Amino acid sequence: MLPAFGMTTSTAPSGEAAERPSVNQLRQAAIFNELGDDVIDRLMRLSTLISAPEGTEICRQGAPADRLFVLLEGQVVLANANTHGSNTVVEVVPPGGHFLLSAVLSGLPHLMSARSVTTARLIAVESDGLRALLHQEISLATAMLRAEAVDFGAMVRQICDLKLRTTAQRLGCYLLKLSDNAEANTVSLRLPFDKRLLAARLGCRQENLSRAFAALRSLGVETHGARVILHDIASLRTYAIPDDSAEFDAV
Amino acid sequence: MLPAFGMTTSTAPSGEAAERPSVNQLRQAAIFNELGDDVIDRLMRLSTLISAPEGTEICRQGAPADRLFVLLEGQVVLANANTHGSNTVVEVVPPGGHFLLSAVLSGLPHLMSARSVTTARLIAVESDGLRALLHQEISLATAMLRAEAVDFGAMVRQICDLKLRTTAQRLGCYLLKLSDNAEANTVSLRLPFDKRLLAARLGCRQENLSRAFAALRSLGVETHGARVILHDIASLRTYAIPDDSAEFDAV
Repeated sequence: MLPAFGMTTSTAPSGEAAERPSVNQLRQAAIFNELGDDVIDRLMRLSTLISAPEGTEICRQGAPADRLFVLLEGQVVLANANTHGSNTVVEVVPPGGHFLLSAVLSGLPHLMSARSVTTARLIAVESDGLRALLHQEISLATAMLRAEAVDFGAMVRQICDLKLRTTAQRLGCYLLKLSDNAEANTVSLRLPFDKRLLAARLGCRQENLSRAFAALRSLGVETHGARVILHDIASLRTYAIPDDSAEFDAV
Repeated sequence: MLPAFGMTTSTAPSGEAAERPSVNQLRQAAIFNELGDDVIDRLMRLSTLISAPEGTEICRQGAPADRLFVLLEGQVVLANANTHGSNTVVEVVPPGGHFLLSAVLSGLPHLMSARSVTTARLIAVESDGLRALLHQEISLATAMLRAEAVDFGAMVRQICDLKLRTTAQRLGCYLLKLSDNAEANTVSLRLPFDKRLLAARLGCRQENLSRAFAALRSLGVETHGARVILHDIASLRTYAIPDDSAEFDAV
């Protein structure tokens, strides 16, 4: 594993005071954005802004969960290493997402490591303070338990995706999700991370991802490196059968 | 979906008083078994014993989570139906397991339906009362949050299994788990449910499951219907590479 190099936090050797996130930054997190100003203010006092260069190990699998993280900018990979040394990419967290919630609420060790795959900007919320605040602020406890249920739902959805769909269909669903707001039948988009990581996230080998892109070509999917053009969203939807249910998405 | 037929509960038309589970029955649930006698006693007053014939729909996907279920005897399938009518078996709950915890704690609708695949005996714990009790009994809140983290971990582990292993390796890991206590290199075991359901749980078609059993034959796996003999556990372990980590298993 990579060492936790380069991360600038409140514990930086410079001894400067920790930089607090703003109210707006805290509200960028889906888990916090419906909380009252009072609670946000108390969360702010538990929080630190962190900058992480690409490739920073933000937390290590098996370590105690001393902070909840919210991602403001960049992409963070959550991966699980088994006892035989194999590493599985479970999820790629997008901006606005959080990670380690389950470990923070339970006090159990992290199940996954977290590593930035781009330059990243994050909020770290101190766990002990957060857990104490949960007991005082019912709105925060409710928001955290709902967010945990949504996280659980995302894992259930991914299991269904892996069991139900072929790699080409999974890739199709992923591309459709990236083009979510497209009203037209054609859209141009950019993959948010490289194809090696995309293959790992989809649960296939790189050569299978290439085959999946080739299979989608006849459905109007054109690729130029990280740039992807979907020429026929309707046909792609018919083929990939994305799940339209919003039940997993609502926090 | 199947109607919720045949389930005998406290609301049975006979008008009889609901039958409460015993302390021992409540302690059969992994989530409850470290709680103090006081808390168990209060849980008992929120709980009802339920008998369900094979094929009973115990809860319907999308319904409000008005009860937490603990399985005492039998097997219960958790499945997710998508908007296109496909049904995915996510998990098969064994005796001692629970289901719907995430929905009960969050107040969000169930993500999955639950159906008994054998005659089943269950404890149903009323959600509103359970949530009220959480605020009074910190040991219960702690136990529930830990159980939810373990449930989350089980989903993460399944995602890793699906992404990392072939169907034959997944089947091998499953058989090794069933023979968990075997100290010898040979063990005879019985599949707890039929091969159609086993294929669905492993995320493959039935013909692929047959192929997987055939692939394991050279590793000493002999099958006669539901009876399976593992003649060479050491070789099977080397091939299937089960994850020995206990981090997901502890409640």
